[in-house]
Amino acid sequence: MDHSTSNFTLVALLSDFGNADTYVGVMKGVIARISPTTQTVDLTHAIPPQNVALASFQLGSTWPYFPEGTVYLAVVDPGVGGQRRAIAIQVAAGLLVGPDNGVFSQVLRQSPAIAAVHLTNPQYWRTAQPSTTFHGRDIFAPVAAYLASGVPLRAMGDPIAPADLVCLPPPEWHQDGPRISGAIQAIDHFGNLITTVPGNLLNGNWVVQVGDQQIPSGTTYGSASPGSLVSFVGSHSWLEIAVNSGSAQQALGLRLGDAIQIVLQD
Amino acid sequence: MDHSTSNFTLVALLSDFGNADTYVGVMKGVIARISPTTQTVDLTHAIPPQNVALASFQLGSTWPYFPEGTVYLAVVDPGVGGQRRAIAIQVAAGLLVGPDNGVFSQVLRQSPAIAAVHLTNPQYWRTAQPSTTFHGRDIFAPVAAYLASGVPLRAMGDPIAPADLVCLPPPEWHQDGPRISGAIQAIDHFGNLITTVPGNLLNGNWVVQVGDQQIPSGTTYGSASPGSLVSFVGSHSWLEIAVNSGSAQQALGLRLGDAIQIVLQD
Amino acid sequence: MDHSTSNFTLVALLSDFGNADTYVGVMKGVIARISPTTQTVDLTHAIPPQNVALASFQLGSTWPYFPEGTVYLAVVDPGVGGQRRAIAIQVAAGLLVGPDNGVFSQVLRQSPAIAAVHLTNPQYWRTAQPSTTFHGRDIFAPVAAYLASGVPLRAMGDPIAPADLVCLPPPEWHQDGPRISGAIQAIDHFGNLITTVPGNLLNGNWVVQVGDQQIPSGTTYGSASPGSLVSFVGSHSWLEIAVNSGSAQQALGLRLGDAIQIVLQD
Repeated sequence: MDHSTSNFTLVALLSDFGNADTYVGVMKGVIARISPTTQTVDLTHAIPPQNVALASFQLGSTWPYFPEGTVYLAVVDPGVGGQRRAIAIQVAAGLLVGPDNGVFSQVLRQSPAIAAVHLTNPQYWRTAQPSTTFHGRDIFAPVAAYLASGVPLRAMGDPIAPADLVCLPPPEWHQDGPRISGAIQAIDHFGNLITTVPGNLLNGNWVVQVGDQQIPSGTTYGSASPGSLVSFVGSHSWLEIAVNSGSAQQALGLRLGDAIQIVLQD
Repeated sequence: MDHSTSNFTLVALLSDFGNADTYVGVMKGVIARISPTTQTVDLTHAIPPQNVALASFQLGSTWPYFPEGTVYLAVVDPGVGGQRRAIAIQVAAGLLVGPDNGVFSQVLRQSPAIAAVHLTNPQYWRTAQPSTTFHGRDIFAPVAAYLASGVPLRAMGDPIAPADLVCLPPPEWHQDGPRISGAIQAIDHFGNLITTVPGNLLNGNWVVQVGDQQIPSGTTYGSASPGSLVSFVGSHSWLEIAVNSGSAQQALGLRLGDAIQIVLQD
Repeated sequence: MDHSTSNFTLVALLSDFGNADTYVGVMKGVIARISPTTQTVDLTHAIPPQNVALASFQLGSTWPYFPEGTVYLAVVDPGVGGQRRAIAIQVAAGLLVGPDNGVFSQVLRQSPAIAAVHLTNPQYWRTAQPSTTFHGRDIFAPVAAYLASGVPLRAMGDPIAPADLVCLPPPEWHQDGPRISGAIQAIDHFGNLITTVPGNLLNGNWVVQVGDQQIPSGTTYGSASPGSLVSFVGSHSWLEIAVNSGSAQQALGLRLGDAIQIVLQD
């Protein structure tokens, strides 16, 4: 254990626990008991209950901005207490800890697994008799704390071949000449609609078609007049649809998974 | 003041302040002014306004997972500015700071008071002229910060006999042979219903009766098919009613305090 | 860079980003990459989208309780990617970083600008090609982290005369003998109504008039019987209207900006 680095190792937390209960606080208490100098940072705890795909999107959008070596603790875990494996994964950017249900898919497509383990060693759990309903507290948080304090991944359990990890299908889009089709993969707090269309497909100008609406391309919210729709490559690097000083979700009534069409212009 | 330990003392915060205002941030600022190396952790700030019983439940469910010596700062304080006392309490697990209104009842039933003081010494307040409406900022947060930095409890004010502390009645349940009656004491973010029935009463199988519904026993969410009701001993150690991949609150329409019946099976 | 002080420098964050997405977490990751020992504290991220005036109120109510030298990072930024300047300001209390749109107005009326810069030096940005929609991540958070780690303000860009900073008009109130008129400038989580009337205008007793309602003066929530309206000088030092164990907003149906009248009594 290298104290000079472990002092600065972050554990970044993401869950669907919300902020009304103390489930997140409990995980931080468990981490502090094991590794008092480890800092924690909340990514979000407002993932809609059991929405593994949205958790995967949020992790995939977030990890590039964190320090190397960060431990990502992700607990969106509808299969807790059942057959799904508890896992930890080494990637170039750091370490991933959570259920083997695809929650790390978008991270792993950007930063492939170097090594992975099935968390079978109870020595690094909070108790050898974990609860059946809160592995975040009893397995994942303790493992994250031990990893943050320098215990090597291989000590945590049996190796898993990276190819055997559960992986969600990538966000879907299709291009046919100047026409690209995609869908809404996330909707943020402002009502901005984040699509499955990668920004690097988009050069020059384009029009997004949603029903009868034709939404012009721009570069930021203010590319449209207040209250008007605009689309641009968002800060996540995906095509995003927004309303200047308003909510694109309210303006368009779209929901997660709804289809959109893009026509590239000259 | 022992710097080698005080560096790692946590202040764990719980309130009904919500996250929309800066009341919680202000308390953290006050703590940082007094004790810059003290770390704070949020338990929750979403206690329903003035619901002391629910705050007591959350603290009682949370403290066992925190490091020894943690300072728990709990501000659910409908009597602020009135006659209720401001107190601090030493327990085996750490220190409790807040109003003397029963907010620590569930902690104290598990970890009895070793010593208690009435916070009468203005030397450890933020100001000798505290506001009448925000003792969290002016009395409780400063006291928590001084305690976290090593000032002894006895310096904070006049001793109180532990038996004189305000205590809420324990969560009620009754057993009559194989029949146990209880009530809903908390409802979490997922709509899981946490009852007043201690898990250690439950061996083997049982059925929970809510109106016409018969809810079987299990061990985790996945003990029932998706969308179906199940009951099990939850991670809080209380009997819990859940829906696999759903909300038991929505399925049953129950509210805090509503009664439930259990029939133990052979 | 003075490590002995920079270890304890706080970055206090305020935004309209909400807690559902990872935008706040991303800013903390950016800060941790630049300055691993810098601590962050959330003031609030629940400012209503683009409500610069309310952000200004919250900052003005909060900064007096934080340590000297704190870096305040405020991202309520409807003009991101447009013509508004990115700025940093030195005040006696610390450093302010954010858009030049008036978000710091209430701080600056209490603690005037000593120096200000236009953030034009990309050396202290996350990238020389910042996104057009998330300057919090690409400009403001990195600048805050460098300031917290001891880089001097003047290195960040071109000086701005403090008088040239965008400033919102102060909260409006008028006094005519014993009559004072004002408005609701903020509504907190409890439904307490915080007015634009400074507490130092109020001595003795008064009555607040809202439509047909006559609301007596008091000193705290408990000055009225449970469920009754009361007004007092709140912990923010503004006249506040509350209901003991209830919500004044629900009782009165008032909204931000609505007018209120006060009549001072003998």
